[in-house]
Amino acid sequence: MDEAQLADLTARCRAFRDARDWARFHSAFNLIVSLNLEAAELLEFTQWQTEQGLAERLAGDAQAKEALAHECADVMMYLLMLADAAGVDLHRAVLDKLAINETRYPVDKARGVATKYREL
Amino acid sequence: MDEAQLADLTARCRAFRDARDWARFHSAFNLIVSLNLEAAELLEFTQWQTEQGLAERLAGDAQAKEALAHECADVMMYLLMLADAAGVDLHRAVLDKLAINETRYPVDKARGVATKYREL
Amino acid sequence: MDEAQLADLTARCRAFRDARDWARFHSAFNLIVSLNLEAAELLEFTQWQTEQGLAERLAGDAQAKEALAHECADVMMYLLMLADAAGVDLHRAVLDKLAINETRYPVDKARGVATKYREL
Amino acid sequence: MDEAQLADLTARCRAFRDARDWARFHSAFNLIVSLNLEAAELLEFTQWQTEQGLAERLAGDAQAKEALAHECADVMMYLLMLADAAGVDLHRAVLDKLAINETRYPVDKARGVATKYREL
Repeated sequence: MDEAQLADLTARCRAFRDARDWARFHSAFNLIVSLNLEAAELLEFTQWQTEQGLAERLAGDAQAKEALAHECADVMMYLLMLADAAGVDLHRAVLDKLAINETRYPVDKARGVATKYREL
Repeated sequence: MDEAQLADLTARCRAFRDARDWARFHSAFNLIVSLNLEAAELLEFTQWQTEQGLAERLAGDAQAKEALAHECADVMMYLLMLADAAGVDLHRAVLDKLAINETRYPVDKARGVATKYREL
Repeated sequence: MDEAQLADLTARCRAFRDARDWARFHSAFNLIVSLNLEAAELLEFTQWQTEQGLAERLAGDAQAKEALAHECADVMMYLLMLADAAGVDLHRAVLDKLAINETRYPVDKARGVATKYREL
Repeated sequence: MDEAQLADLTARCRAFRDARDWARFHSAFNLIVSLNLEAAELLEFTQWQTEQGLAERLAGDAQAKEALAHECADVMMYLLMLADAAGVDLHRAVLDKLAINETRYPVDKARGVATKYREL
C-alpha cells in the first residue's frame, strides 16, 4: 500500500504553516487545544438534534454537508500537525490501534453490543 | 498523488466495524460524540501541564508518546468513519479547506500572528 | 435573596485546594482545561445512547444517577474555582446573561423553536 | 447555610425556558451536549495562549473578563438545567464529591503535587 497520502497532506499543512511563520505556535499542547475546539465545531451539528434528524440533514442539505466536510478537514489538519509535532506515524498508529482493538473486542463477545471493553 | 491510503484505512475500520455488526451504532451523530470523547483523551495530556512540559514529556517518555499515538489513532478512526458515514471525501476536504485558508490568512497579514481571520 | 450558597461552596473548594497547596496549579487557563475534561466525562453518558435511553437510565439506575451527580459536581467545582480565579461573580454573571438572553430570544419569536439567536 | 441561591437561579432558568416552550428540548442528553459546547467556548480563551498570557488578559482587559463571565454563566445555566432534569441536588453533589476527594487526596500525600488519585 502506498503511504504517500498522509505524508503529502502533512507536507501541505506544514508548507501553509511555515509560509506564515506559525511553527512556534504549533506545539503539541496548542495543537491539542485547537483540535478540541474543532471537534466542538463538529459537536455543534448534534445540538438540539436527533440521530435521525442529523442523518437527514446531511443527506438533504448540500450546504450542511459541505460545512461538516470543512470541520472534518479542520480536525484532520490539526491531527496531522499534532502527529508531526509529536513524531507520531499516524498511519502506523491506526494499524496498531486496530490490532489492539481486535483483542479488546473479540468478534464473538462484541457482536452487536456497544459495551466498553473493560466491561466485556 | 496516490489516494489509496485514506481509503485503505477506512476499509480496515469498516471491516472491523462490520465484523462486530456495529454499523447501526455508527451514525454521523454518534461518531461525532465519540470523536469528541477521544479528543478529550488528547486534552488530558495538557492537564496541569505547560507547553514546554508536554514537549519534554513526549520527547523523553516513550510510553507517553505511544499513549498519545493511540489517542491520535482513536480520533483518526472516528474521523474516517464519520467522513464515510456522511459521504465526505476527507482528502478532498483538506485540500479545499487549505485553499480557503490561503485566502483567509494571506501570508503578508498572517505572518507571525495567531489572530483569527475575522480580525485580520 | 441570599447570596451565601455559591460563596460557601467556593470557600469550601478553596479550603480543599489550599490545604494541598494547589493554588499555583489553579490558574484560569488550567481550570478551563480541567472543566472541559469534566464536561467530557458528562458527554460519556451520551455515547452510543439516545435521548430516551439516557432519560430512562437516569430514572431507573440509582448508580448511574449518582455517577452523573458526581460529574456535575466536578464541573461545578472547576466553574467555581475558575470564577474565583478570574474575579467573576458567578451569580451576577448568570443574572446578566439571562437578561441578555431575554433580548436575544424574544418570547414571541423563540417559542417552540431551537434556533440560534443570530438566525431568529 | 441558606440553600436558596441555586434553587433561585434554577427557577429563573426554568421560567426562561418555559416562557419559550423549550422544556421538550431540555433532556439530560441535549443539556449535556450544550454544556460541552459552552465549555468549548471557555476553552477558546486558552487557544494560542499561555497560562501567564491569559491571566494578564483577564486582569487587564475588562471586555475579555466580561466575555469570560458570560461563558461561565452559560456553563452554569446548562449545569443547573441538567441537574434539574436529572433530579440531581447540585449543592448536595458538590458536598458529597468534596468528601470523596478528601479521602482520595489525603493532605499529606497530595500536598503540592498535581497527580491523579489513582497514582497517589
